[in-house]
Amino acid sequence: MKLYGDKRSGNCYKLQLLLSFLEMHCDWVDVDIMCGETRTSQFLEKSPNGKIPILELDDGRVISESNAILHYLAQDSKFIPSSTFQFSRLLQWQFFEQYSHEPYIAVARYINLYLGLPDDRKAEFESKKAGGYRALAVMETQLEKTPFLLGDALTLADISLFAYTHVAHEGGFDLSAYPAIRNWITLISGQNGFIPMQR
Amino acid sequence: MKLYGDKRSGNCYKLQLLLSFLEMHCDWVDVDIMCGETRTSQFLEKSPNGKIPILELDDGRVISESNAILHYLAQDSKFIPSSTFQFSRLLQWQFFEQYSHEPYIAVARYINLYLGLPDDRKAEFESKKAGGYRALAVMETQLEKTPFLLGDALTLADISLFAYTHVAHEGGFDLSAYPAIRNWITLISGQNGFIPMQR
Repeated sequence: MKLYGDKRSGNCYKLQLLLSFLEMHCDWVDVDIMCGETRTSQFLEKSPNGKIPILELDDGRVISESNAILHYLAQDSKFIPSSTFQFSRLLQWQFFEQYSHEPYIAVARYINLYLGLPDDRKAEFESKKAGGYRALAVMETQLEKTPFLLGDALTLADISLFAYTHVAHEGGFDLSAYPAIRNWITLISGQNGFIPMQR
Repeated sequence: MKLYGDKRSGNCYKLQLLLSFLEMHCDWVDVDIMCGETRTSQFLEKSPNGKIPILELDDGRVISESNAILHYLAQDSKFIPSSTFQFSRLLQWQFFEQYSHEPYIAVARYINLYLGLPDDRKAEFESKKAGGYRALAVMETQLEKTPFLLGDALTLADISLFAYTHVAHEGGFDLSAYPAIRNWITLISGQNGFIPMQR
């Protein structure tokens, strides 16, 4: 199996973090999105949506979307709850991540960290604040009640949300008013097999 | 079980369409997003992200995010493939729907249909075109190869993507250059148990 990705991307880090927790290995192929490497015909043939990360199986079949790849890699592991209700709540957090969290927090970080906050993107950068803080408040509400997003155990929901939340400051977000999120970040960072994001 | 939603919303229609295919019934509670009914403290207590649809189980537990609710309702049915690869590809299409399709096609439709395309939203409406057509092209590429998104059988992937694609014209999108998508819409509309979106 081969993973194609960019190590600064939170969506790619999710996969590296899961693999480390699972003590699994995948070959890694660096893809530079800033040089258009996701828009080449070779890449688009693998994945028509032109986004990283993608997972290529040994027989050439491909899965895209970071959260879908997490499910493939984590099959039959403790990171996927077995009850239908908890499984649906896991998906709930992952769809929340892609719709209500990533488009604000990850995009603000991209504009700041990858692009260096150019003048013509400053208004867009600022426009991400309200949505990003709204998403953090939703997480805080849950994490005030339970140590992990689904309860007492770490699952894919935490891995999906941890990726961009723990570097939210790189997108200009201040976590000081979110003590439950800060405790959760500390808790995850102390888990066996944890690896930091590579830069 | 109770579903809370707005019948003009594609995210809510997904659930009604699945229930009809499954010959299942859920009580329905109308929620008017235009009157702020998702921002009341009563609603936010059920679902802190303040979005419809939500599913409330008989014991009071709640699942939000339309695609997560689909998985709960369709458990053990033919609409969820059993192989891990196909299941991951199902999730891939659903995450694609929420990240690369809905924010363009559904939001353009919302601005046009719910808000009546006011002058101060026209630039935003136009800005949705490129991303929406990009998403349609990704679907077309797949549907040129297989009748349904995952192959020969209708799954949750089709239900998730059908909801806003078949009303894309209400967001200003022209499907005439996407014959495979148009065939797929016809194919789904002819399935046993199909119900049209209510208005």
